[in-house]
Amino acid sequence: MQPAPNLITTPWRAAAAAALALAAALPAAAKVPVVNTTINEAEVLAAQQAWGEALVAIGKAHETQGPAAARALAGQVIDSAYGYQFGPVLFKPTLTVAPQTFRITREGALAYFVGGDAAYPQDTGFALKGWRQVEVRNAAMFIAADTATTMGHVTFTDRDGKRTTVDKTWKFLKDDSGKLRIVVHHSSLPYVGP
Amino acid sequence: MQPAPNLITTPWRAAAAAALALAAALPAAAKVPVVNTTINEAEVLAAQQAWGEALVAIGKAHETQGPAAARALAGQVIDSAYGYQFGPVLFKPTLTVAPQTFRITREGALAYFVGGDAAYPQDTGFALKGWRQVEVRNAAMFIAADTATTMGHVTFTDRDGKRTTVDKTWKFLKDDSGKLRIVVHHSSLPYVGP
Amino acid sequence: MQPAPNLITTPWRAAAAAALALAAALPAAAKVPVVNTTINEAEVLAAQQAWGEALVAIGKAHETQGPAAARALAGQVIDSAYGYQFGPVLFKPTLTVAPQTFRITREGALAYFVGGDAAYPQDTGFALKGWRQVEVRNAAMFIAADTATTMGHVTFTDRDGKRTTVDKTWKFLKDDSGKLRIVVHHSSLPYVGP
Amino acid sequence: MQPAPNLITTPWRAAAAAALALAAALPAAAKVPVVNTTINEAEVLAAQQAWGEALVAIGKAHETQGPAAARALAGQVIDSAYGYQFGPVLFKPTLTVAPQTFRITREGALAYFVGGDAAYPQDTGFALKGWRQVEVRNAAMFIAADTATTMGHVTFTDRDGKRTTVDKTWKFLKDDSGKLRIVVHHSSLPYVGP
Repeated sequence: MQPAPNLITTPWRAAAAAALALAAALPAAAKVPVVNTTINEAEVLAAQQAWGEALVAIGKAHETQGPAAARALAGQVIDSAYGYQFGPVLFKPTLTVAPQTFRITREGALAYFVGGDAAYPQDTGFALKGWRQVEVRNAAMFIAADTATTMGHVTFTDRDGKRTTVDKTWKFLKDDSGKLRIVVHHSSLPYVGP
Repeated sequence: MQPAPNLITTPWRAAAAAALALAAALPAAAKVPVVNTTINEAEVLAAQQAWGEALVAIGKAHETQGPAAARALAGQVIDSAYGYQFGPVLFKPTLTVAPQTFRITREGALAYFVGGDAAYPQDTGFALKGWRQVEVRNAAMFIAADTATTMGHVTFTDRDGKRTTVDKTWKFLKDDSGKLRIVVHHSSLPYVGP
Repeated sequence: MQPAPNLITTPWRAAAAAALALAAALPAAAKVPVVNTTINEAEVLAAQQAWGEALVAIGKAHETQGPAAARALAGQVIDSAYGYQFGPVLFKPTLTVAPQTFRITREGALAYFVGGDAAYPQDTGFALKGWRQVEVRNAAMFIAADTATTMGHVTFTDRDGKRTTVDKTWKFLKDDSGKLRIVVHHSSLPYVGP
Repeated sequence: MQPAPNLITTPWRAAAAAALALAAALPAAAKVPVVNTTINEAEVLAAQQAWGEALVAIGKAHETQGPAAARALAGQVIDSAYGYQFGPVLFKPTLTVAPQTFRITREGALAYFVGGDAAYPQDTGFALKGWRQVEVRNAAMFIAADTATTMGHVTFTDRDGKRTTVDKTWKFLKDDSGKLRIVVHHSSLPYVGP
C-alpha cells in the first residue's frame, strides 16, 4: 500500500533543538535560540496542498487496492491531518445532511470520506469519487497565535475532467510537534439562487 | 432611531482595573490581580445572541424607519460586531454567488446585509427579509487563546413564521477592549442531495 | 524511591473526550462539546504548589536515599514540570553566576538543582539545602492564550526553620496533554540597597 | 522638549489594510490578504532597543531640561512601551525593596524611573543615573501567540563609562494596533555568592 502523504510541516521542536545546538557551538555573538510556536503562511499553504493530495491518494488506493486499503489510508490521513485527538473537530462536510450534518467525531469523518458505515447510511464516500486534482484559491487568511484560518474556493477535478468548486473554510492548529491539524472545516456547495 | 444592540461582552481591561483597585484596598491575603485575555464560553454565547438580535433590529429599522435608518444601523452593527478594522474578515454569507462569494471588506458585508449597492448587484439585503427571531444551536465549540470558533445550525424565523436553517461557522476574536469580534463567518444552506 | 509529585493539571484532551461522550448520550438540549486550550488561574496555582512540593521531595530523597535517588527524582521533575522538550527554557535560577547565569538546557537545570556536574563547578544543588516548605505569594498574574505568567515572592523554609525569600517570575505553557510546563523562570534574591 | 522615542513596531492593522488594497488592485493570482496577529523576532529586538533608547532619553531630558521634563517624558514612555492600560503589569525593577518590590501600577513604575514620589520614599529615579548606552544580550527567546519573552543580560553604561549588568526578563504583548507592550519585566542584579 502506498504510504500516507506527508502532512508534517515545520517541526518547531526539532527546529528549536537545532538552534540550541548551533548556539552552543558558536561564539557569544551568534544567533539567540528562539522557540516559536506561532504559525506562518507557508505552513498553511503546505497543509492545504497536503490535504488535497491525501484526498486524491485515498481515491486511488480504492481504485487500485480496494475498499479496505482506502479505508486504512483514510484513517491514517484523518489521524495525521485533523485534530480529533484534541476532542471534537468542527467539521461540516460538503455533502452531509441533517441530522448528521456535523461530523465532530473521527468515526463521522471516516464515514464521510470512505462510506461503508451503517451508522451513516447517507454516506457514499466523498474520497471515492475519482478525484485527480485539488486546487485551492484562498480569498483571505487570518493567522493568530498557533492557529490559522483560511477561506476560499477549492476545486476538485475528477478522472473525467469534471470540475466541482466548493466554498471552504479551514482552521489549522499547530500542535506541540509542529504539525498543523485541522480543527475547523466548513465546506459548502455554492448558492445557486432562489 | 433605536440604539444599536449591545454587543459588548466582559471588558477585561475594566475587570483587571477593578481587581487591581480591590487588591490595593485589601490585606495581603486578598485575591491576586489577574489580567486574563482569554475568551470563555459565556462570552461566545452572548456574542452569538447579540448577532441574532442585531439582525432582527436592522430589519425592524427598515420596516419602521426606512432604508437609510436600516443602512446606518447595519453599519454600526458591522463596526461593532465584526473585525474589519483588523483587515480582511473571512466572510462567506449564505446567499452570495461567484465572483462575489467572499465579502472580505466592510463594503461587501454592508451590501450583503442591506443591499442597495450598485457594486453588488445581486444583493437584495439579507437583513431586510423580515426576520423576527434567530436561534443558534451549536454542534461544538473550539476555544484557543483569544479566539473561539463555533459550528452549528442557525434558524431564522420571519414575520410569517417561516423558518430557514443554515449551517454556520463563526470565529470570534477578543479585542483589547474585551469585545468579541467576528473574524471568520461561513454560512451555507443545507445540502439537499444530488 | 518515592514517586515524583503529581504535576499533572486538568487534561483538556481527556476533558474534551468526556464532554463529547456526555453530549452523545444526552438529548439535543444538552451541553455543547467544547475544546478549550486556554489556561486558568486554578491550574496556575496548582502548578506553583506542585513545584514547591517537588523541590522539598528532591531534598528529602537526598537525605533518605542519597545523591543518586535525588538526581533521578530531579530529572523526573524537570521532565514533568519544565518545557525543555520544546527547546530552550528561559531559566535564571536564584544563585547562578556568570558566565553560567542562564540555564537554557536540561543539563544546566539539573546541575543547578542537585549539583555534582563537573561542567557546572559552582553548583552545589539548590534542592539539597534541606527545604521543608515552599510558600508562594503572587503579586499579580497575566493569563494570555495557553500561557500564564506570575510574579511574586516565594519563601523557602529549611529544616532549621530558616526562611529565605526570593523574587520570582514563572511563565507556564499548557501543552497538548493539558499539563502546565514552565518555559520561563526568573528567580532573584531581593535587592539589599547600595 | 524632545519627542518620545518611537516605540511603534510593525502595525499589523495597517499592513493588513495595505495587503487588502493591493489584492483588490491585482489579478486573481495575486497574493492573498493575510491578517497576522503573531509577533516576530525582529519586532522584539526593535522593542528592546527602543526601551534602552527611551531610558537614555529620560536621563538626558533630566540633565538638560530638569525634573518636570524628565517626568513628563517618563510618563509618555510608560504609556507607550508598557501595558498598564490592560491592568497590572508584572514589573520587578532592579533596585526596589520590600514591601514595594513589585510595581504593578503605572504610578509605581513612574516613581521607580524618576523618583520624586512621596509614596515611594526609597525611589531615587533609575532613569536619572546618567545612562548613556544600553546593550541587550539575549540568552534565549520564547515566542507564542501574540507574546514574546526574552531573557538575558542588559548592560547600562553611564556618563563616566561605568558599566552595570543586570539579569533581565521581558514579556512583550502585541496590542491591537501592532505595538509591542511590556506586560512582564523582571530585572535583578547578579548573584554575587554567599
